[in-house]
Amino acid sequence: MALVPTMGFFHEGHLSLMRVAGSKADRVVVSLFVNPAQFGPNEDLNHYPRNFEQDAKLAEDNGVSCLFCPDAKDIYPPRFQTWIRVEGLSQGLCGASRPEHFRGVATIVAKLLIIVQPDLAIFGQKDFQQLQVIRRMVRDLNIPVNIIAHPIVREPDGLAMSSRNTYLNAQERESALSLVQALRLAEKMVAHGSRSGPEVIQTVRKHIQSFGNTKIDYVFLCDPESLKPCREIVGETLLALAVWVGKTRLIDNTLLKQ
Amino acid sequence: MALVPTMGFFHEGHLSLMRVAGSKADRVVVSLFVNPAQFGPNEDLNHYPRNFEQDAKLAEDNGVSCLFCPDAKDIYPPRFQTWIRVEGLSQGLCGASRPEHFRGVATIVAKLLIIVQPDLAIFGQKDFQQLQVIRRMVRDLNIPVNIIAHPIVREPDGLAMSSRNTYLNAQERESALSLVQALRLAEKMVAHGSRSGPEVIQTVRKHIQSFGNTKIDYVFLCDPESLKPCREIVGETLLALAVWVGKTRLIDNTLLKQ
Repeated sequence: MALVPTMGFFHEGHLSLMRVAGSKADRVVVSLFVNPAQFGPNEDLNHYPRNFEQDAKLAEDNGVSCLFCPDAKDIYPPRFQTWIRVEGLSQGLCGASRPEHFRGVATIVAKLLIIVQPDLAIFGQKDFQQLQVIRRMVRDLNIPVNIIAHPIVREPDGLAMSSRNTYLNAQERESALSLVQALRLAEKMVAHGSRSGPEVIQTVRKHIQSFGNTKIDYVFLCDPESLKPCREIVGETLLALAVWVGKTRLIDNTLLKQ
Repeated sequence: MALVPTMGFFHEGHLSLMRVAGSKADRVVVSLFVNPAQFGPNEDLNHYPRNFEQDAKLAEDNGVSCLFCPDAKDIYPPRFQTWIRVEGLSQGLCGASRPEHFRGVATIVAKLLIIVQPDLAIFGQKDFQQLQVIRRMVRDLNIPVNIIAHPIVREPDGLAMSSRNTYLNAQERESALSLVQALRLAEKMVAHGSRSGPEVIQTVRKHIQSFGNTKIDYVFLCDPESLKPCREIVGETLLALAVWVGKTRLIDNTLLKQ
């Protein structure tokens, strides 16, 4: 049995995780839980998009056997006080601007894996740091599940799919393309022989900043396993971005291959 | 199947947990792991008593089906970095003088429960705070196991059994009796109508201090569920002690009943 953990408001990225899950397991469970513990105090928990009716229909159409939608009061009952931290991997990148985010992610994913007991669980590679935090947690706590990564699913023009794209107005939607375009620029630089981290990062930053309404949170080059920063592009290197476009924080990434 | 988690060097307390486990489950697994993560930097990890041959024989004689003795390098492999904290319950009592102790306990017990997948797990009530930390963790993380508490097992003269009793010389062994005697005094006070926390605590402290080589870490009255301090003895109240006798730290406790 396969688990696809989600926060709902399904887009093609989620649906593609569900279909891959269905191709690898006899039954697919999708969890739908907008997890308060992974939102910071000034983040978008209350505005996070929700559409249960549509989600239920889409899940059914994509071969899901069971939609698991627990209540927050059952997941975090009175006197709840147990938290899981994956210490090193949670610190940089998104962990720097979202200090308790990965504590919330690790704890809810552990709970879902323990409740549902799937043979495999599928996560999108857009949240690359989340994927590595979960992989590490599963190994460290001996949770008997196979974690499968699924490539980023993109709109026809390249924008990485995200439930948060719904926040973007027309102008911001244009600026949001700066992320994928910057990643493609970096890939080209590396394909043409560039190995310098600072050079690649500078090009990426400049490209993003040339668009209106963008504010860079981070542009980061690191080892994809340890998430430790790299100054040189050797072997496989993760290029990860977080950019505010207006009031919406978007993330994207690519694996640069030497 | 039942799990009895231990750090080995079995005494009658451990053996009685094994026999109770055997009366409640078809098979008994005993884990034997001196968990480095629950010892502080200046604690007795390296001197903790060990006797594997004797433990194996005692386990077999007490109906244990499987002795699980993992290596520290397999439990905490390179790059291990996932820790479980039960925040409130870990803070007072032993958590005050042993700041990372319960993080180590919660993490190893979660790992053992996930690896062994027992229907029930048995813990001695001597480590009362540990028991409550584990109960809370199991509830909070939805681990499907029944946690069973077993009353403190004592020597004929009343000393609570502990692998650390082996550290005591003859004179310290005398002073170690101050703990159980102080608990019995408190029980008598309550039986005779005393309801004042400070009065009971003062009597307990005086009694312990009247013995040579004793140094009180804490004498604490609290609610047995929340471990929050009580000034009055109403309903069931936990009286918990930690006392240094020479270089050995001993703990003991009793539930005072109004």
